[in-house]
Amino acid sequence: MRRSSKWLYLAALALTPILTTAAVDNKDVIDYRQHIMSTLNEQAGALGEILSSAIPDDNVVAHLDALALTASTALKAFEPKVPGGEAKPEVWSNWAEFSKRMNEFAAMTAKMAKTAHEDGKDAALGQVVDALSCKGCHDTYRKEQAKK
Amino acid sequence: MRRSSKWLYLAALALTPILTTAAVDNKDVIDYRQHIMSTLNEQAGALGEILSSAIPDDNVVAHLDALALTASTALKAFEPKVPGGEAKPEVWSNWAEFSKRMNEFAAMTAKMAKTAHEDGKDAALGQVVDALSCKGCHDTYRKEQAKK
Repeated sequence: MRRSSKWLYLAALALTPILTTAAVDNKDVIDYRQHIMSTLNEQAGALGEILSSAIPDDNVVAHLDALALTASTALKAFEPKVPGGEAKPEVWSNWAEFSKRMNEFAAMTAKMAKTAHEDGKDAALGQVVDALSCKGCHDTYRKEQAKK
Repeated sequence: MRRSSKWLYLAALALTPILTTAAVDNKDVIDYRQHIMSTLNEQAGALGEILSSAIPDDNVVAHLDALALTASTALKAFEPKVPGGEAKPEVWSNWAEFSKRMNEFAAMTAKMAKTAHEDGKDAALGQVVDALSCKGCHDTYRKEQAKK
């Protein structure tokens, strides 16, 4: 083994635990934000079934509250700069724009939930199209992957 | 065509729209409860990552609130007696026991969220094991399917 190769080999060995730990941490970060975005997707799906009258609207205020709560947690989950999963690198290269849109999303879903409590669910549902304009952001920041 | 066959054929034709509608409705019902149970799964996953210290606990109270809210919607989603998806028939054949456990789940997650607001997140997290004893019910009432 040439001297330079030997040093590379030893350096790689020494770094292995660090690299492994970093990989686990990155997986945790990606998993965490996916838990949050999947929650939004599931709650939007439930709401969509109510809006299309396929399902009675008994739970609609709880769905609006859950959407608002979860939207309020989403930006924090993207703060660690860990590309991967379905997040495009633009999340971090356009962070100012991304975080502005995430904050708007949180504000609009919070307003919709507040409207539901103060003025009733019908008034709130009039805000759905503006509040849940998911595609606008996903087109820029999400690379959808096939479900595992 | 024999007379009886002809009547069967006409009856089947006449029933086709009804049967098709029923099938769509059943799919909607199953999808809806899966949106709710998947939300619980995603939020429990996010909470688990915080409990294992893989992720900082900034969002923990929001996760507890989202769990409580979603738990409060779950029983309603199983009220239509529509077997399928991951629900075992025991959900409906043991409805009294199933609904009792679902109501306990909603009450315990609500108590945990209330504790988080009144006594802080550390006090609330002490209730996680009792509140999120998902496996106890899943062993009896859920037939897990491979992800699509």
